[in-house]
Parts: sequence; structure tokens; C-alpha cells
Amino acid sequence: MQFHHHGYVKGDPRILPAAGIGLDRPAELPAEMDVLIVGTGPAGVLLGAQLSMYPEVHTRIIERREGRLELGQADGLQARSIETFQAFGFAERLLQEAYRITEMQFWRPDPADRSRIYRAEATLDSAGVEGSTLSEFPHVICNQARVQDYFCEYMANSPSRMSPDFGWELLGLEVEDGETHPVKATLRRTAGPDAGTERVVRAKYAVGCDGARSVVRKSIGGQLLGDSRNHAWGVMDVLVDTDFPDIRTKCAIQSEAGSILLIPREGNALCRIYVDMGDISPEDHGKVRETPLERIVEIAQSIFHPYRLEVRDVAWWSIYEVGQRLTDTFDDVKPEERGTVEPRVFIAGDACHTHSAKAGQGMNVSMQDTFNLGWKLGSVLTGRSPESLLDTYSVERQVVAQKLIDFDREWSTLMGAKVLDPEHPELGGVDPKEVTAHYLKSEVQASGFGTHYEPSMITESGEHQHLASGYPIGKRFWSAPVVRVCDAVPMELGHHMRADGRWRLYAFAGREAPGQGGAIEAWAQWVRTSPESPYVRTRREGDDAGSVFDVKVVWQQDHDAIEPHDVDDVFRPRFGPFQLRDDELVYAADPKDDIFERRGVSRDGCVVVVRPDMFVATVLPLDRPELLAEFFDGVLLP
Amino acid sequence: MQFHHHGYVKGDPRILPAAGIGLDRPAELPAEMDVLIVGTGPAGVLLGAQLSMYPEVHTRIIERREGRLELGQADGLQARSIETFQAFGFAERLLQEAYRITEMQFWRPDPADRSRIYRAEATLDSAGVEGSTLSEFPHVICNQARVQDYFCEYMANSPSRMSPDFGWELLGLEVEDGETHPVKATLRRTAGPDAGTERVVRAKYAVGCDGARSVVRKSIGGQLLGDSRNHAWGVMDVLVDTDFPDIRTKCAIQSEAGSILLIPREGNALCRIYVDMGDISPEDHGKVRETPLERIVEIAQSIFHPYRLEVRDVAWWSIYEVGQRLTDTFDDVKPEERGTVEPRVFIAGDACHTHSAKAGQGMNVSMQDTFNLGWKLGSVLTGRSPESLLDTYSVERQVVAQKLIDFDREWSTLMGAKVLDPEHPELGGVDPKEVTAHYLKSEVQASGFGTHYEPSMITESGEHQHLASGYPIGKRFWSAPVVRVCDAVPMELGHHMRADGRWRLYAFAGREAPGQGGAIEAWAQWVRTSPESPYVRTRREGDDAGSVFDVKVVWQQDHDAIEPHDVDDVFRPRFGPFQLRDDELVYAADPKDDIFERRGVSRDGCVVVVRPDMFVATVLPLDRPELLAEFFDGVLLP
Ligand SMILES: Cc1cc2nc3c(=O)[nH]c(=O)nc-3n(C[C@H](O)[C@H](O)[C@H](O)COP(=O)(O)OP(=O)(O)OC[C@H]3O[C@@H](n4cnc5c(N)ncnc54)[C@H](O)[C@@H]3O)c2cc1C
Ligand SMILES: Cc1cc2nc3c(=O)[nH]c(=O)nc-3n(C[C@H](O)[C@H](O)[C@H](O)COP(=O)(O)OP(=O)(O)OC[C@H]3O[C@@H](n4cnc5c(N)ncnc54)[C@H](O)[C@@H]3O)c2cc1C
Repeated sequence: MQFHHHGYVKGDPRILPAAGIGLDRPAELPAEMDVLIVGTGPAGVLLGAQLSMYPEVHTRIIERREGRLELGQADGLQARSIETFQAFGFAERLLQEAYRITEMQFWRPDPADRSRIYRAEATLDSAGVEGSTLSEFPHVICNQARVQDYFCEYMANSPSRMSPDFGWELLGLEVEDGETHPVKATLRRTAGPDAGTERVVRAKYAVGCDGARSVVRKSIGGQLLGDSRNHAWGVMDVLVDTDFPDIRTKCAIQSEAGSILLIPREGNALCRIYVDMGDISPEDHGKVRETPLERIVEIAQSIFHPYRLEVRDVAWWSIYEVGQRLTDTFDDVKPEERGTVEPRVFIAGDACHTHSAKAGQGMNVSMQDTFNLGWKLGSVLTGRSPESLLDTYSVERQVVAQKLIDFDREWSTLMGAKVLDPEHPELGGVDPKEVTAHYLKSEVQASGFGTHYEPSMITESGEHQHLASGYPIGKRFWSAPVVRVCDAVPMELGHHMRADGRWRLYAFAGREAPGQGGAIEAWAQWVRTSPESPYVRTRREGDDAGSVFDVKVVWQQDHDAIEPHDVDDVFRPRFGPFQLRDDELVYAADPKDDIFERRGVSRDGCVVVVRPDMFVATVLPLDRPELLAEFFDGVLLP
Repeated sequence: MQFHHHGYVKGDPRILPAAGIGLDRPAELPAEMDVLIVGTGPAGVLLGAQLSMYPEVHTRIIERREGRLELGQADGLQARSIETFQAFGFAERLLQEAYRITEMQFWRPDPADRSRIYRAEATLDSAGVEGSTLSEFPHVICNQARVQDYFCEYMANSPSRMSPDFGWELLGLEVEDGETHPVKATLRRTAGPDAGTERVVRAKYAVGCDGARSVVRKSIGGQLLGDSRNHAWGVMDVLVDTDFPDIRTKCAIQSEAGSILLIPREGNALCRIYVDMGDISPEDHGKVRETPLERIVEIAQSIFHPYRLEVRDVAWWSIYEVGQRLTDTFDDVKPEERGTVEPRVFIAGDACHTHSAKAGQGMNVSMQDTFNLGWKLGSVLTGRSPESLLDTYSVERQVVAQKLIDFDREWSTLMGAKVLDPEHPELGGVDPKEVTAHYLKSEVQASGFGTHYEPSMITESGEHQHLASGYPIGKRFWSAPVVRVCDAVPMELGHHMRADGRWRLYAFAGREAPGQGGAIEAWAQWVRTSPESPYVRTRREGDDAGSVFDVKVVWQQDHDAIEPHDVDDVFRPRFGPFQLRDDELVYAADPKDDIFERRGVSRDGCVVVVRPDMFVATVLPLDRPELLAEFFDGVLLP
């Protein structure tokens, strides 16, 4: 954590000094703003948190509800989400209170007596385990409400001092071309003495994070395509007394009486039980929603047979109808106008894609939608990037959503299907082994690491990928251990990333040690001094070096062989009012776990360029710094 | 973290439900209270935090200052303190913002040119490093003010909803025998419109955590014995521009011009420089305190020669006069009355012992003082323990303080001494190698692990120590990895400890697996059912099993070989209003790092009894449960 360099910070260093709009932020929703976010679900609060780091931008986030969400909805958090929380500074705290998944048990009809279930097999969840091929962070369960709380705390502590405007419902919006604030939104007060009154507000951009029934989507003429509701689940958060031995383990239970997904919850006693209510016929017309809680409990009990399941308290329950649906657009630009008209309204999260809860994707993918969008809006609104950057949002996320929908369709078909009785294959059903096999196969996707962005203005095609094979271009930058030189502290290189809208340049040095010349020195000097260097040309008067780019170096030598004065000033820039040196940008490979080995980085060195949303934009050779200029010419304005 | 079992917790699970005094805690300081703590330094706030977990006890903590400490004073935190913070639930957060020490550099006069300093050698700080012989937690630097903030947050979130009463100074106190609230304290308001007015309040007990000039100590006739001031240091928290290469590393610098202790601070730029101002003659009469800041900077600059040191900002500075002093008593019982009269007034921290800052002990030892005292007061005031328990505080901590004083005297003599010039041994001075050797030798003491309590009513002499050689009786219980059975999560056994005033019984099972009988089963049954069992006899009506004892089991078998229904109910007690089972008390050795091996636990099993302040009270064989009864008979009332 970096603080004190602007003078002594007397309180909690997580509370950043107020700036811009945060110096005098209107408590009431104003008539005009830069960005209007609709909805405080996971998508909305992440976006708010990200934009709160741009205090020059006035962002408001409205929510129909009177206050914070208290319970219910999603709770599965993929390792990718925890990595994201790390960038927002609250991963540790959330992990402390979360339930951690280390394995999943598969229960099936006992071959000896198919009316009973038995523990058939287990799969391990490798995320967060030493040597994991997924992430150093685990897969956990924590309620959506708490995730939202953490993002809101982040907003409140940000320079913008942001907090949601509760009690405002969006009724509709339209875009009026030619205005400075072209988005015109009609709102209704839902709480307080003036409940029911309507207001019109204006924004430069609006983002609909308003869930599956999104008004924003409808306002821009978007449609959810696909099966609206083909399957129903009863879901309940309950305190139970049971002799089922795996009550604190994630279980997929497939019995002759139906199937259950059992998710132990944070705390030490609560669990969530998803009870399969079967396919819904088109003639159902919502009748399934009238199923009483007692019926869901009854079905659960019969599935658990021969184990006893006594529900002692119900914290929340719901009938959750699902289908796989995907919107035809993520913004308000018509396909035929793409490239000529720039988007003004976006949608994200459940507003774009809905699917089952079985693969635990909803909250996670929704957050990644807005993590993709947030920095782009920030960069355009602060005049750093051309508006065309905003087009990449829809392009990139539409592909991800399609993959998600396909994945979920497969997964829920398998999970929802009848179990094959080997004695009676003629009755049909899925071989349970297939379920397990599929589960294992889809680990990367299920953990949130399936996303691979296609080449675009912000993601190169990978001519120099061989220089860093462990940093696939278009995929998320995966951290690895290094040693910080100034204080000899072993740490994760990636955990230094902050959701601060900055680009990252990781310069991996070649064989030469500091002071011995080599491509790294020439590269560093070029970056620091060349008029073509994006580092130089994007620097605004009064801004610190490093405001747009976080430039770090990793040496191959041991940390104690590296003397600061041998290292180029671009890696030790002066900053802050006292013009002190930032000593925390210089790293050394950890001899116990060499990052060059682990991530397949060439011994000749290279530069890994990472986007503000933590995705690898490109890999470049050290000896051709002009390629860096070429890449950024289209992305960052002079 | 355990929550939800009393019903769904809708907000931050760290905010515990209010109870007892917390339901309606008077905002203003009342006329009568159970415990009056004087001072909100590290000793005071830890004590407040500990007692806030006893909502039946009304504790107040007064502070002369108008509000929180903002900066300055101590900042070195030993690994033992971080372990303690873990028990208070804020270790992770504090570590995130702290500076971590991994090595120390020793700079000395360059043999080639003694007017210059050079980097002579380095020592590694093993705390927090894989395979450490000290602790799994590191040694860090974080300002005292932040430590105090975390404890105050803990109090505020506790069932007692406690917060300090700022703006009250203690003028003096006396003990009036025979009263229900025998301690009569005279206070003066130091802030607000009524500043200057005096008040008398009464308490059952008072604890002076009021620093070196303690009024409480004086009121009970205590004296600090030893050298009051024999040495002076200039200390400054500064932002500097320098070419000194180790500015972000802890350094001991001994030059011909004097010596410096350099402590990099949290954040990324601030550092603390202790500049040796030399011995103070008895005739000094405080003149050294008039030294201006400019002079301290000048001395520092000459010591850093040939490196440049330019001070850009000064956050805090002080002249810190030190000597080694120790009080003759830690409570108000005269030596000749010990055992017949029970103490009513205690002192802790700097009120009892003062010494140099060089070994970074002050804040740490002060907190351990009150961690020792807190649970004893809580246990006596809730009627769980006899008053004689309170005698053990002075007895135990006096020994620790003496050791601290001796250690500091040696260390500061060495560090403050002139450096030997090998060319001119006749000029005298200390061989610098001796300093390094001493530093390494004293690592255990310096990290806070030197404390070894003598046998007493709460610490046995160790007849069965051989059953768990890695848990020395009288020393702190050191955590080790295990796997929790219910959810297969690998974790640190000790990190489950909370500063909740409970005793811990760690039952290490013998060779038999669960359900196979053996001593563990008989032991568990005895503990759960025998009328002599302290677990049974101390249980009050309406209380959950486990309110006084946290009873855990560790099996030798792999976690997946253990079925819950084979494990005795004492390890799976029912709790809370819904009478759910607590599944989180059953552990298995981690095959990758077997706790039985690591801590020298006998394969026949044993019981490790741990005090509420995390010290090992005794080790007992499984097959003699009556020894457990014997031990607790004197400690816990029926
Ligand atoms: C009742 C319910 C139960 C669910 N259960 C599960 C589950 O068991 N497991 C699982 O994995 N996922 C579940 N989900 C899905 C999961 O919560 C979503 O995938 C995830 O929350 C998507 O995040 P989001 O930010 O896109 O939308 P949401 O979390 O839906 O947030 C949308 C927000 O916008 C607000 N809003 C909507 N319209 C307006 C408007 N016009 N004006 C102002 N505010 C508006 C809403 O009040 C809400 O706060 C459930 C969702 C719901 C609604
Ligand atoms: C000015 C100063 C500088 C220091 N510098 C260093 C350093 O550089 N390095 C280092 O390691 N240690 C330093 N120390 C020592 C270190 O801070 C202590 O060892 C540590 O704080 C001891 O904790 P404590 O709780 O016993 O006492 P303290 O932290 O001293 O706390 C005592 C508290 O009691 C309050 N108080 C005192 N008298 C009364 C009264 N009559 N009524 C009400 N409240 C009262 C005080 O305001 C204070 O808040 C310094 C101490 C001081 C005072």
C-alpha cells in the first residue's frame, strides 16, 4: 500500500484524499452528471467503484431499492473475482469471512439400493492450492450483499467520495444527439416523503446494470434472445439439523427423487440448497412460482434419503426460473452504424445475459463486464482516449457472454438430467461419470479464466508472444512471485495492481545486470525521454510521472545484487509534492521460484503490456520500443 | 469466522450482536463502573478490547487526550504482536498497510576510509519466512496510532459497543476497603466546554495504562527503579531525498560521527531516523530536550556521509530520553500481604517499565502485559475464577519486565558504543561483529517469544511435557497447519483462536481412527459427561456448550477418512438458539506437514491446555482425564 509520500496520512490509509467531485460532491442526485449507472448489483457497484477513481468524472449510481441488499441472490465467487477484489483492495477481508471450496462431492443413487444416495466420487478444486494451474486465489462462497458492501465502501473511501443514490427507479431513457449530455433519463422516487414523484436527469453516458428485466436494455431496443424460462429451481438459505455427513462440503446430489446442488455458506452453519424443480412447460405461465416453501423442503428431504434433513430456520428462499438468454447488443449502436456512431448507452451483467445458477457464473461474469467497461469510460471522459475505445466493450463482452451461455446450457442439461440406471439403460438418463468428467474439463471456464479477447485496438495479435509464453495476449495477466528490491520483500507481482485505470508495462530485463547496459537500458531511456514514447507524450503538466503508466522492471539477478543507482530513472521516478523517488517499481526474480521460468519469459527479456482491467494487451521485444509507440498511438491521445 | 448460526447476519459479520452493557451503554462516563482503564496507549486499548468481549462487565477507558493519537511514538511490531492481532481479527488488515522487515543491514566505517560508511553485513529476519523457527507471521513496522485504531474498532464492534472516553485525566486514586466499588478515582475534564471541572468516579478495579509518568503508579506508591535517563535519541519521521541505497531497509549505521537506527515506515516513502545524541550527564537537567530539529538533521547528515540526505518533510520528531527502569510492583498489594489481600489496582506497559526504543519492544511488551491481565479480570468479574487468579498477573509480568530491561541494557550499550577501529584498538570501542552476533542471538527475545511463565495456579510444571515437546508449557502456543475435516480446508490450527476469554483444549488423538475407540473416546466422553469434568461443572444454564472451553480434536488420519458420526459429540456440540451442530472443531493432520511431527506430539495422543492469552498451561495424557479436573479445580469456580 502506498501513502505518506504526499505528507503524513494520519488516519486509515485506505481512505484516499478527496479530489475533484469528491471535494464537494452533491448529496442529492443532480440534474446533470457524466455517467449515470442504473442498479447496484455486482455489475453496477464494480463500475461505480472503478469510476470513483476518476474524480474528474461525476458518476452517480441509482438504485430502485431503498437501501443496501441484505441477503439472497448469488454467492459463488470464482478465483477470477477474488483476483479482481485484490485490485480493489478487499480480497483478504472478504476471504476471511467467506466459505472456501476445496472439493466437490458427487452423491448418486446407491447401486445396491437405488432409493438411497451414496458418496460416489470427489473432485478437487485446485484454485488457491499450492501449484494450482488456475490461480493463487481460491474459489469461495460469499453473499452478493457483502460483495456489494465492499465495493460501496471502496467508493466511499475513493477520491470521489461516492455513494449510491438509493430510492430512484429508472422509468426509461432516450439519447438526444447533439447535446453535451445526450442521455435523458426519467426517474421516479421510490422511497421517502416524495415517493412517486418523477424527475428527468441528463448524463453524457448511461450504463444499465439493472438486471434481467433491464429498463435500459428495453430503452435502447435491446432484446434477450433464447429460452426465457425453461427450468425452475427452488433455492433456500437454511440452517439445518442433519446427519448428512457432507453438509459443509459442496455437493452435487443426484438421486432417483431428483437433484440438488448443496452449497455450504460462509459463517459456519448456513447452507444453500438448490432443489431442481424440473423443466417448465410453455403452458406453465409462472405457476411454478406459486410452489410453497414446504414443498421445496419436502422434495429436498426425499432427495437426501436415507439422511435426515430438518430445516430449523429459513433466511431466504425463492423460486428461480432460468433459461439461457443473451442480448443482441451491449450498447446503443446499431450493427450497421458501428464505427460511425459512438455508443452512449451500455448494458452489463444480467441485463445482457441470464442463465442458470448451477455453474456459479452470474455475479462473476457481470462484474467482469463492467471491469472491462469502467476504465474505458474513465479514459474517454478524461480525454485520454478516443471515443472509439468504447466500441471494444460490446465486441469483447458479447463473445464472452455467448461462451457463458453455451457453457451453462451444457452444464445445466447434464446436471438437470435423470441419472442413468446401469441395470436399466433403456430408461435413459445421463451417465454420472459424464457429469464429473464435464465438471473437471470446464474448470478453467468455471473459474473465470476462459476469457480470451480477440485482437482489437487494445489487444494485439501476438507476433511476439513467444517472448512470454506464460502471458497469453488477450488473457488475464496472471501474477507470480518476485522479490521487491528496495526492501527485499517476497511478494506477488500482480498483487501490486490496483484498479486505478493505469496501464502496466512490465519490463523483464535481459541477461545483463543493472548498470551493464543491454536492451533494457536503451528501452528504459527511450520510454523516459523519447518524444514518441507514450509515457512522455501522455504526461500532462502537473501530473506525476506514472499517472498513466505503471512501469515496473523485473531483473533476472538476485535482489541483493541490484543497486538502485544502477537502475534507470524510469523505474525510480520522482513523484508527489516532495518529489521523492518511488522505490517500489524495481523487482528481482525470486531464486526459489523464478518468474522467468514460471511464466516462460525469454532470457532476452521483453515487455508485457497490461490493460487497466488486468488483461495482457501485448508482448513486445525490448529492442523495438517504437512498437510500444505504435500500439499506444491509437489508444491514448496525445 | 463463525456467524449466521443464531440466524442470518445481514451486515458485516465482524460487528457482533450487542449484549449486556452494549445494549444500552451510557454515552457519558458513569459514576460507577466495574473496570476503569486509564490511558489509550497500546496497553490500554488491548485491555479495553479484551474486556469488551465480556459484556456483563462494564469497562470504561479514559484518556487525557481529546481524541485519538495521530502520529509519533512507537512503530515496531514483533511477530508475537501480529499473532495477538490475529486473535483480535485484524492481523491481515494491519499487515496490508505495514512495512515488512525481512533483513537488517549493518553499515560501518569503511576500513579504507573511516570517514565514510559502507555496507558491512546483513542479517535476515526469519519471522514470517517459510520454515521460520519463530513464527508464521512477520516482523513489521506500523505506527502505534494505527494499532490503537484497530483495537478501538474491535471494541466498537464488540458486544459491549465500547469506545474510549476522551478528554478525562486521572488526577489520583485511592482504594477504600469494604466498598463494592473500592477504587475511588478523581478525574479532570481536559476538553469541551466543561474543561477543568473535576469528578469522582468509582470502580471495582482500576488499571493504569498511563505511560511512563503514570499517576496510577504514583497513587499506589509504586516507583520506577533504575536509571531514569541515561541516554538521548533524536527521533524523526521524515520524507527524504537521498542516494543512500538502503533507505527502504532497516539499518544500523555506526559511523565515526555517531550512530543511527534507520527504520523504513509503512507507505512507501516515509522513514524514521533515530539519531544517537549520546549519554546524558546527571547535570544535563533536560537541556538535551532543547536540541533543535536542525541539529538532529545535521548529525544525521554527517553520519550518512558520503551519502546525501535531504529532509523534504518532517511529520513528527522528538527528543527521546531513555534509561532502563522497572517498577517494584505491578499492583497495589504489598509483598508482605500477597496471598491475604487481593489486588484492586494494576499498572501495565510503560507505567511499569521504560527502556530504549532500539530493540523495538515498548509497544509490544505493553500489549502482552494487558493480554495477560485482561482475561483474568474478565474471569474474576464474571464469577468464573477466584480473586487469587489476579495475583498471577504481577508475578508473571514482573519477570518478563526484568528480562526486557536486562535485554535492552545490553542491546543499547552495544548499539550506543563507539565502534572499534582495528588499526587503533587503544582508542577503545566495541567490535562491530559483536553487535551483529548479539542481534542474531537475541532474535527469540526480540521477536517477543522469550516469555516463559513459571509454574503457578495457571501454568503447570510439566510432568507430561514429553507428550508434546513442541508445546513448551509456559510458552505461547505456536500454531501449525492442519486440515479442517468438515470442509477439507487446510488452515492454521492456532488462527482459530479468538481473544474471547475461553480456555482451549486441544485433544490430539492417539493411533486409533474415529470410531475405533482408544483413549481419545474415553477422554471425550469423560469431558462431556463426568460431573467432575470442568467442561460440565462450569457450564451455566442457558449457556452454550463451549462457552468456557473451546474443545478441538486433531486426528492422525487423513481428513477424508474421518466421518462426522464417528466423532464424539464433545467435538460436535450443539449450539445457538437452533441447536445446530458446530462442525468446525474436528481437524486432521495435514499429510504434507504433519502437526504431530512438527510439534513433537506423541502418537499416543495427549491434551494441550491453552490459556485465554494463548499460553500453554499444561500438557496432559489422554488416559488420565482426572488431571484435567485437578488443574481446573483451582482456576475455575464450580
Ligand atoms: C431473486 C434473485 C435470485 C437469484 N438467485 C441466484 C442464485 O441463487 N444463484 C446465482 O448464482 N445467481 C442468482 N441470481 C442471479 C445473480 O444475482 C445475478 O447474476 C447477478 O446479481 C447479476 O448482477 P447484475 O449486477 O447484473 O444484476 P442484479 O444483481 O440483478 O442487480 C440489478 C440491480 O438493479 C436494480 N434495478 C433494476 N431495475 C432498476 C430500475 N429500473 N431502476 C433502478 N434500479 C433498478 C435492482 O434493484 C438491482 O439492485 C439471482 C438473481 C435474483 C434477482
Ligand atoms: C513521546 C513519546 C515518544 C516515543 N517514541 C518511541 C519510539 O520512537 N519508539 C518506540 O519504540 N517507543 C517509543 N515510545 C514508547 C512507546 O510509545 C511506549 O513504549 C508504548 O506506547 C507503551 O504503551 P503504553 O500503553 O504503556 O503507554 P503509552 O503509549 O504511553 O500510553 C499512555 C496513555 O495514557 C494517557 N495518559 C497518561 N496519563 C494520563 C492520565 N493521568 N489520565 C488519563 N490519561 C493519561 C496518555 O495520554 C497516553 O495516551 C515513545 C513514547 C512517547 C510518550
